[in-house]
Amino acid sequence: MALFVHKYGGTSVGKIQRIKNVAENIIKARQRGDDLVVVVSAMSGETNRLVALAHELQEQPDPRELDVLLSTGEQVTIALLCMALHQRGCPACSYTGGQVKIITDRAHTKARIVNIDTDRIRGDLSEGKVVVVAGFQGITEDGHITTLGRGGSDTTAVALAAALKADECLIYTDVDGVYTTDPRVEPKARRLDRITFEEMLEMASLGSKVLQIRSVEFAGKYNVPLRVLSSFVEGPGTLISYEEESVEQPLISGIAFNRDEAKLTIMGVPDRPGIASRILGPIAGANIEVDMIVQNVGEDGTTDFTFTVHRNEYKKALEILRSVHTELQAREIAGDDTIVKVSLVGVGMRSHAGIAAKMFEALAKEAINIQMISTSEIKISVVLDEKYLELAVRCLHKAFDLEKPRDAVT
Amino acid sequence: MALFVHKYGGTSVGKIQRIKNVAENIIKARQRGDDLVVVVSAMSGETNRLVALAHELQEQPDPRELDVLLSTGEQVTIALLCMALHQRGCPACSYTGGQVKIITDRAHTKARIVNIDTDRIRGDLSEGKVVVVAGFQGITEDGHITTLGRGGSDTTAVALAAALKADECLIYTDVDGVYTTDPRVEPKARRLDRITFEEMLEMASLGSKVLQIRSVEFAGKYNVPLRVLSSFVEGPGTLISYEEESVEQPLISGIAFNRDEAKLTIMGVPDRPGIASRILGPIAGANIEVDMIVQNVGEDGTTDFTFTVHRNEYKKALEILRSVHTELQAREIAGDDTIVKVSLVGVGMRSHAGIAAKMFEALAKEAINIQMISTSEIKISVVLDEKYLELAVRCLHKAFDLEKPRDAVT
Repeated sequence: MALFVHKYGGTSVGKIQRIKNVAENIIKARQRGDDLVVVVSAMSGETNRLVALAHELQEQPDPRELDVLLSTGEQVTIALLCMALHQRGCPACSYTGGQVKIITDRAHTKARIVNIDTDRIRGDLSEGKVVVVAGFQGITEDGHITTLGRGGSDTTAVALAAALKADECLIYTDVDGVYTTDPRVEPKARRLDRITFEEMLEMASLGSKVLQIRSVEFAGKYNVPLRVLSSFVEGPGTLISYEEESVEQPLISGIAFNRDEAKLTIMGVPDRPGIASRILGPIAGANIEVDMIVQNVGEDGTTDFTFTVHRNEYKKALEILRSVHTELQAREIAGDDTIVKVSLVGVGMRSHAGIAAKMFEALAKEAINIQMISTSEIKISVVLDEKYLELAVRCLHKAFDLEKPRDAVT
Repeated sequence: MALFVHKYGGTSVGKIQRIKNVAENIIKARQRGDDLVVVVSAMSGETNRLVALAHELQEQPDPRELDVLLSTGEQVTIALLCMALHQRGCPACSYTGGQVKIITDRAHTKARIVNIDTDRIRGDLSEGKVVVVAGFQGITEDGHITTLGRGGSDTTAVALAAALKADECLIYTDVDGVYTTDPRVEPKARRLDRITFEEMLEMASLGSKVLQIRSVEFAGKYNVPLRVLSSFVEGPGTLISYEEESVEQPLISGIAFNRDEAKLTIMGVPDRPGIASRILGPIAGANIEVDMIVQNVGEDGTTDFTFTVHRNEYKKALEILRSVHTELQAREIAGDDTIVKVSLVGVGMRSHAGIAAKMFEALAKEAINIQMISTSEIKISVVLDEKYLELAVRCLHKAFDLEKPRDAVT
């Protein structure tokens, strides 16, 4: 007998009728004879409603009390889902994060899970019950309610799957899987049957907001196979797991992109040790997250240093650079907040030479100028003028045959 | 330093602005240097909203899951109230019933408190915090969420006051105290400064729905002085406590009445042992609650037996009586569902003769016919045709000088 963890997001349980559909889905899965643990989010809109109430009282609500408030959202859903299951004759029992002892640290509103006691869940499963657990929430060792931050229900599901050594963790959402790229940009984008944890991390962090990064990291760390699938349309979804060596790996999984980038360049700084930290130190000190960093060796013992930040932080970052301008002995400071980042992602590129060349060639054919390049083991990112975004995604999608099923690509 | 428990009902916390007002009230009370524990209900309307959701899924929602669902209502309020207090610089900490270990039995939706662990509350109080506790809810010994039934927040407040040996339990509500009778019937009705637990029980059970009966019983049992007062208008309210022997007791506290009564009479049944149980057995078996019971010795070895039930149960009770009619060898069965009960309540009547006579005389003067009479130590109830209700209440209010302050009555 297999054990599966299902997770249903806010949209999937956003109305009573949808909760009924989820109950049907659970019962169908259970008829296959498997044990089921179900994690649910708050009904869509509920968290925002509660946050709005809090903001009427405090501009920056007390984190501990915010957790007490927000955790009610999922608690409502677990009770309603159990009622829907009981109504259909399916034994089920609901638990809050605190009841099922999802122990976290004390970092209110962004707590991390440190331990899960699975005794109660295993007891209920052995009695033939479906166990329904509130996502997004936990409790500290000394009994204070915590929440895991946005998207935390995914983390709850993966953590439970890991603790219970579940066969698979199924994340039901409003998309039917992970795509080769955003179908709104390239209509020929294709759902992937499989993708590795590492690829998913690159895809997720670059803007394919299907899964929370933390939950993918967690799943990878504990080797929990994750499946992303639709709660509205039947289908196999996309399985996220470790690379299986027996399977011929495709070159490229997909194309991720990010519209919210801005770049800053300090030109002609002395090329000597410590210069990078003297540039980025004040940026980090202002809590600005830096994404890509590129440094080229220049002439005359000077170098050009470029990095990208979120577009919202562009002005702040530029001001900081100007204020350290003289100290850095830089020749010039420049910036551009009309850029985008496009990335080719795939574990296959590890063992295949020539991917980068093929990528640059495809872009060149369309006369797209590349402003920056950055590579990792499984991705190549380029920074482009934002006007080229759609064109770049489409020409790369075609160049790497992503519209065709992966097995056809070698 | 004194310790007070405040309880604010659903109307008092029904809007964000009202929660702010409650916070102001708490801070004002705290400035007098006292320790404060605050119990709150769900925002008005919230419990009904949740119940409606449940009913969309199950006609008779599973009691355990209903408790998980409904307990979120108070949890929202405790968090919001703490935010309002923090915003005003007042240290405060919120707890659900489960967190503060209000241990109950397993009777979901109508659980009874069996124990309260006060360690956590005392710890917070000693750190100068206001402790805000969710009313209406508890947790079983093995960690399942329970609720105490309607009005359960009053019970939570009184139970906490008893466990903490608080100096007083203040129940803030939408009325400014307990009145000599319903001001909608007798505009001259007067707020009582004091009333005893026993009187309050009689007043409450007879229809003055200011406080839940269970909480008054509880307060009496543990001798917790209760004060009913308005959360909207300043004032001393009404203090409910034990009779103080040094104080000259007034004769009468007030006049309670109940419009929802119906009476049933079995005439000419054999006057022998066991007859009452043979009549009332089938009634109790059908879960019909009986209020007054009057039996008169009749002639010819037979007796007339009359009892009252809630008007909604009248038809059902009548059918049951008809079905046992022959077995009882009764001459006749009669009934009337257009009656009301009016009661005079007061601990003073224990030691004063002539109260009943004065009452009957006052009614006779207005030509009001008394259909039934029933007396206890501290009350005299009469059953009247419903058309006389207002007239009876007003003439008794006047006859016993209730519009005048109690000290003037001897």
